[in-house]
Amino acid sequence: MPSLRRTGRRVDTVERGRGHPYNGLRMTAESPEGSFEELQQRARELVDAGRLLYGRGMVPATSGNFSARLSDGRIAITVSGAHKGRLSESDIMVVDAQGAALEARRPSAETLLHVQIYHNYPDAMVVLHPHSVNATVVSRFSGDELVLRDYELLKAFPGIDTHERTVTVPVFANDQDIVRLARRIDDYLEAHDPMYGYLIEGHGFYTWGAGIDDALRHVEAFEFLFECEICSRGMERS
Amino acid sequence: MPSLRRTGRRVDTVERGRGHPYNGLRMTAESPEGSFEELQQRARELVDAGRLLYGRGMVPATSGNFSARLSDGRIAITVSGAHKGRLSESDIMVVDAQGAALEARRPSAETLLHVQIYHNYPDAMVVLHPHSVNATVVSRFSGDELVLRDYELLKAFPGIDTHERTVTVPVFANDQDIVRLARRIDDYLEAHDPMYGYLIEGHGFYTWGAGIDDALRHVEAFEFLFECEICSRGMERS
Amino acid sequence: MPSLRRTGRRVDTVERGRGHPYNGLRMTAESPEGSFEELQQRARELVDAGRLLYGRGMVPATSGNFSARLSDGRIAITVSGAHKGRLSESDIMVVDAQGAALEARRPSAETLLHVQIYHNYPDAMVVLHPHSVNATVVSRFSGDELVLRDYELLKAFPGIDTHERTVTVPVFANDQDIVRLARRIDDYLEAHDPMYGYLIEGHGFYTWGAGIDDALRHVEAFEFLFECEICSRGMERS
Amino acid sequence: MPSLRRTGRRVDTVERGRGHPYNGLRMTAESPEGSFEELQQRARELVDAGRLLYGRGMVPATSGNFSARLSDGRIAITVSGAHKGRLSESDIMVVDAQGAALEARRPSAETLLHVQIYHNYPDAMVVLHPHSVNATVVSRFSGDELVLRDYELLKAFPGIDTHERTVTVPVFANDQDIVRLARRIDDYLEAHDPMYGYLIEGHGFYTWGAGIDDALRHVEAFEFLFECEICSRGMERS
Repeated sequence: MPSLRRTGRRVDTVERGRGHPYNGLRMTAESPEGSFEELQQRARELVDAGRLLYGRGMVPATSGNFSARLSDGRIAITVSGAHKGRLSESDIMVVDAQGAALEARRPSAETLLHVQIYHNYPDAMVVLHPHSVNATVVSRFSGDELVLRDYELLKAFPGIDTHERTVTVPVFANDQDIVRLARRIDDYLEAHDPMYGYLIEGHGFYTWGAGIDDALRHVEAFEFLFECEICSRGMERS
Repeated sequence: MPSLRRTGRRVDTVERGRGHPYNGLRMTAESPEGSFEELQQRARELVDAGRLLYGRGMVPATSGNFSARLSDGRIAITVSGAHKGRLSESDIMVVDAQGAALEARRPSAETLLHVQIYHNYPDAMVVLHPHSVNATVVSRFSGDELVLRDYELLKAFPGIDTHERTVTVPVFANDQDIVRLARRIDDYLEAHDPMYGYLIEGHGFYTWGAGIDDALRHVEAFEFLFECEICSRGMERS
Repeated sequence: MPSLRRTGRRVDTVERGRGHPYNGLRMTAESPEGSFEELQQRARELVDAGRLLYGRGMVPATSGNFSARLSDGRIAITVSGAHKGRLSESDIMVVDAQGAALEARRPSAETLLHVQIYHNYPDAMVVLHPHSVNATVVSRFSGDELVLRDYELLKAFPGIDTHERTVTVPVFANDQDIVRLARRIDDYLEAHDPMYGYLIEGHGFYTWGAGIDDALRHVEAFEFLFECEICSRGMERS
Repeated sequence: MPSLRRTGRRVDTVERGRGHPYNGLRMTAESPEGSFEELQQRARELVDAGRLLYGRGMVPATSGNFSARLSDGRIAITVSGAHKGRLSESDIMVVDAQGAALEARRPSAETLLHVQIYHNYPDAMVVLHPHSVNATVVSRFSGDELVLRDYELLKAFPGIDTHERTVTVPVFANDQDIVRLARRIDDYLEAHDPMYGYLIEGHGFYTWGAGIDDALRHVEAFEFLFECEICSRGMERS
């Protein structure tokens, strides 16, 4: 699979209410028929991902959010407040590449974090933010970084072909000011490469992939590894 | 969603065998056709909620109970002794606003706790009482109050828009004398506002909402948070 | 529900290959049509119970066994070696009241433990022996007896109407000599009444009921309580 | 069930790209119709096993691999990189008895470990390699060997008819050089008999059986026992 390379572009604002150019295209909600079919397909994938993750207890009580980048640069993202385990395709709305709504609805409150990932990683086409017990608990006991080592399952991440590599998952303090949080994340991303995902303290994790299968594989891998870490910590005290 | 405001009215008696006035209406089991359809709809919601919660291990061995307030003030509530994971609509009966049965059947033994919540919170239309392992265990190690802080998921509760708020969940000692238990709960409710739910030691928790989706979201949020607390307690000992 | 009273009769032998009288009836595999329908119905209940318990991880790898007492005193019991999560009605065979096979097949190796329960408790019509992780683990850390106290869910057992009662679950050392094990259990049963179930160390638990729903409710209650005990033990060390 | 006897033949090479003789048959992908039906049947069993194990969280994020030995000595094995919970029959390919691909596709990276088991155990017809949290965690806290004792469920393994036997599960350090890993495993197998399965540190476990039901029973038994061990370790610290 392609590695997800960073571009270095910083995103820290969200402009609301107007179409914005991206890659030379003017974007509006009414795009040619072909891209509407693409939107429907991406929406269905996110709806199905929501059911799958809900069945595993990873998106309780309207938490979490998902998005997919369309080929014209717009982003399909879950609306604010929807229960992610019971989505319908109408719960997926469209924002532009800066996160500005292209419909008269509110996108996820964390839209900017999705936008930021797409700007930094041109190969990322899907961003998933689950909110599991394992992620929440491990985020509170890992300091600034969780270092995962000696797990065969690290090979689920792109570019890792041995269990002897380590994967470092930063833990960012939670912040209701999303712009400020995005800046802190951007600073970390600039200093560290490659990146596979990150934790927000008491708030779950973000991961991404080249498509829905890729992103879900990363979710499964992180969730497994978080559970191993928590379980192992319990064993260490014997 | 509307905040659930307290009225301050105390309920500590259950009068059986007569219709009782509430908001000016005289209530009997035989109400106009429209309210029978409403009863059926509320009953179906409670039946479905029971299956959902049973699938998650939250209502084992006939434990737990659910209710919904009808628009005329009567309360639809699970009958005593039914297995909450295998309810049918005939397992939902009707009581009046004071909890007196309006049919020749026994309502849940904890009917008065439901009645009390409806009297204190005019916006509450559904009350759910699950009986999970997480709630049972956390209730035995939290003293008089469980304080939940720094969880993003606290925003699942009405009126909380930041993880920096805390949600305090009182833990009441269990008591087979439901009238006496209701009095203790009433004293606490009068002294504390807002309230999102409470634990009864060794006996699960009560929560409520403006409708079935609202109440189930609160159940999911509490269950998630209880599990995080138990898991975190284990991590702290490292 | 009727209380399950002990008779005091001791069972410590298994006679094979002949029909045996019980309550004046001579029993053979070929009984009148009505009792064959009863056998089919009891078999279906056990098959369904197996699927339910397997779905909850309680009968892994052909472990566990189930039986039901027929109205003529014969016992329908799972054959030896069948996977209890994938039973078909043909996996249920018939033995007499002493456990002797009435067909050319091998009944469960633990048939005598089922027979013993039916002899001691005239009201017991179903015996279930699950083999869960919770039961296996709690049996290794509870000494000779596990005392369950202050759980509201104790009210799931017959005759208990308050959380202030205790339920004592004896833990018998495992033994491949089933006759010897049955004797030890019999001695305990004679000295203790009422009884709701028992644990065999490293080997799961036995419980019973007046019918399949009753017995399954007891299984659910015990499994819940075992999990609470294990979880609580972890919390106590904080 | 037949015991799985070792032959003592060492396998430490993988020759690629040519058909290889085995038991006098020259093997190619195009074998007579009968063996194609056998291949389809074995493939379906492996596909179903994948769904079952995925539902239990045992093959996350494309981890794990499965194989079945065909009657002509060829081996049906999962292709490299497929998600084992969402296999289709086309994800099962054929290699020869030394593990060389008989199609233009890449078999599992751990093919040699499957081949080695078939060479050592003539009665083994299915090899399953799950990758569960329980196996991963227990492998990191068991030193070189995990000794399982006093569990009734040990009787799920062939040749064990009492809980008083012990089953020793070796833990091999992980190694990306599969040939070198296979040699270390071979040395252990030569010195120890019987064997039921083994753990690879941070990498899951291998087990096998005389058919798919046999192998799945061993998977269920090991997974259950690993979970008991982890849970018990937590209880010991009280």
